[in-house]
Amino acid sequence: MSEIIVNQKTYQLPATPVVGICLDGTSWEYFAAAAHVMPNVQRFLSQGAAGTAQSVVPSFTNPNNMAIATGVPPVVNGIHGNYYFDTTTGEEVMMNDPKFLLVPTLFAQVAEAGKSVAVVTVKDKLRKLLGKGLKGICFSGEKANETTLAEHGIERASETLMGRPQPGIYEPELSVYCIEAGVKLFDGHQPALMYLTTTDFVQHKYAPDAPEAIAFMAALDHWIGELDARGLIIGITADHGMNDKVTATGAPKVVYVESLLQAAGIPCRVILPITDPYVVHHGSFGSFGVIYLEDADQWEDALVVLNSAPGIEDILTQEEAAVAFELPFDKLGDLIVLGDQHTVIGRRPDWHDLSVVAEGLRSHGGLHESEVPLIFNRKLSSAYAMRLASGQARNFELFDYLLNGLAE
Amino acid sequence: MSEIIVNQKTYQLPATPVVGICLDGTSWEYFAAAAHVMPNVQRFLSQGAAGTAQSVVPSFTNPNNMAIATGVPPVVNGIHGNYYFDTTTGEEVMMNDPKFLLVPTLFAQVAEAGKSVAVVTVKDKLRKLLGKGLKGICFSGEKANETTLAEHGIERASETLMGRPQPGIYEPELSVYCIEAGVKLFDGHQPALMYLTTTDFVQHKYAPDAPEAIAFMAALDHWIGELDARGLIIGITADHGMNDKVTATGAPKVVYVESLLQAAGIPCRVILPITDPYVVHHGSFGSFGVIYLEDADQWEDALVVLNSAPGIEDILTQEEAAVAFELPFDKLGDLIVLGDQHTVIGRRPDWHDLSVVAEGLRSHGGLHESEVPLIFNRKLSSAYAMRLASGQARNFELFDYLLNGLAE
Repeated sequence: MSEIIVNQKTYQLPATPVVGICLDGTSWEYFAAAAHVMPNVQRFLSQGAAGTAQSVVPSFTNPNNMAIATGVPPVVNGIHGNYYFDTTTGEEVMMNDPKFLLVPTLFAQVAEAGKSVAVVTVKDKLRKLLGKGLKGICFSGEKANETTLAEHGIERASETLMGRPQPGIYEPELSVYCIEAGVKLFDGHQPALMYLTTTDFVQHKYAPDAPEAIAFMAALDHWIGELDARGLIIGITADHGMNDKVTATGAPKVVYVESLLQAAGIPCRVILPITDPYVVHHGSFGSFGVIYLEDADQWEDALVVLNSAPGIEDILTQEEAAVAFELPFDKLGDLIVLGDQHTVIGRRPDWHDLSVVAEGLRSHGGLHESEVPLIFNRKLSSAYAMRLASGQARNFELFDYLLNGLAE
Repeated sequence: MSEIIVNQKTYQLPATPVVGICLDGTSWEYFAAAAHVMPNVQRFLSQGAAGTAQSVVPSFTNPNNMAIATGVPPVVNGIHGNYYFDTTTGEEVMMNDPKFLLVPTLFAQVAEAGKSVAVVTVKDKLRKLLGKGLKGICFSGEKANETTLAEHGIERASETLMGRPQPGIYEPELSVYCIEAGVKLFDGHQPALMYLTTTDFVQHKYAPDAPEAIAFMAALDHWIGELDARGLIIGITADHGMNDKVTATGAPKVVYVESLLQAAGIPCRVILPITDPYVVHHGSFGSFGVIYLEDADQWEDALVVLNSAPGIEDILTQEEAAVAFELPFDKLGDLIVLGDQHTVIGRRPDWHDLSVVAEGLRSHGGLHESEVPLIFNRKLSSAYAMRLASGQARNFELFDYLLNGLAE
């Protein structure tokens, strides 16, 4: 068996080991600002192949990671946000439970086909989704000291693999630790396929030209270079980009949609699918909101009110959003609202902890964070090179390119 | 001397011969549909470098060719359309006269620096602009049988160089003849730098998957392969793309702006900068129009009327258009109007010869024709590769990439 079919797409099984890397929140601007300290990625740009890919919108972590893991968009895989409103129970729910994932991952299927697989995340919330059904190694940096052979495929990873405790969840080094873990996994376990996915704490906090961001990118490049030196085929993408979401004076630029519509006599609930247990860096402010109206017949009134709010880029009906973004139709409320490049969507001021964004706000979720890098350390076949060059690539085709798209 | 400065940009003089090719009206769709018959370009995609570049808007032939020739946008080089309204004389004028070109071309300057240069166009209208100040070879396929050593740098090119008469101006073969001329010029004259620019008769007439379009692309690929086989460094781009501009029933989809505004009590003159002496393939219908109001104070009224016209994508003031598209401020009338992907701008029905578009209309001029391929048969340096991959490239940087941007 040299190929498998996963979610109706065919993949060649890896002959040479491959590693897919998702650098959370890392737009081209971060690569450009740090180019002088990223000799390995610079070499890939010149000698391999690179282009810009479209992410899943909403441009958040879970929908994009799970699209990469399954090779298919949210309408097929079921993961359309970090957080959603369950209309059957009337509860707002984190979308971390593997039960929400409707299809198998490529990782589980490659392992099933007899190739060894390893997945390393930063946040444990993502580990359970990415590891669903996977017979292989799958652990998070966050809980590297708690792994067991039975559940994670490796015993006490922080000790046996990394030789030191993991950095804290809000330390930039935890993402670096995750790429380093890929190198050490390869040396110790020779997986045929790896997926390494970081977190965007640095990008939320620092602009691309900040010394902290540049140092972070340099550290990532070091370990990416170690993977390259071991002969792995490497593909790098991002789940989404990142933009400043502030006014000219540096205050968070928020449209509080629940407040705005309430004041216009249109009661509603706004779901912000960026919401997750780790809100220190964004306060649940992203550029994508889902509006559930108390009275669905008020949708046109709501549209008029939102259309005149500065910073609103677009408002889509359920049907329009489902088609435009390949999202599940029945999870999109009555209206979808998108903030522009520098505007986020809020519920009402008292729902958010404004203290966490008092010093600035960088966030994502909208269209302006949906263009992400796609970089390979090998040349692509002409067909895949054309797809990438002509702007047709999606970030969730990462493993399609890695397994099916290389030049002979 | 190993480098020169042209229009405030520095270029390395060519050590290895280079050829820049502008395939008029050739979007990625044409390359994709003909991929199976373009082995040479397919090889470049995999082994060289490729991406998508932004053209000059208005996405017409003269502004883009002259931006490529000078390396700078219309606001600097002066060529902002094929056709414009001279407010000092009150006349509508073709922009073919070299007097409209305000800066030297890269071609003239490279020749001045002692490197031999050759330029081949299809249409003679473009030859005079591209050849301004050039001490070298410069002729059009259209008049290949009329060239003289004194004016064109080559005597009777159709006989002495090509060995046969040129095809007619409305034959696809004339564009192929132009690329073939590059091969023969190289064999006979060894120019250090060449520019070959075709015409878009085929693209106006045929969609990418039409057999005629595929055969045309195959013929271009053959001669491009011959250039590659001779060791030239090759860069390929387009001046603009091409879209169907028709309704569901196949009729031209036109907003007649003079008629529309006149009916609303807003008399005006609309300049269509696509207008040129060769209108058989487009009837002067493009997706970009310049509006001169009789009473400039009516601009807001005009804006309201145009905003409600289906198929209008955007309306910009003079200032907005000058900034957005790097165009000369004083040549933009009172308002700029852009048609959407499938809509063109007209003046009034009686001004156009509708018989030439009775069987369909494919045209350009707007934003949806401003994304064009940029393809090289060599690898780029990491810095240029990143610019191209991240979507920052302009088509008029073609010779910047060719002369300054290759990998070592």
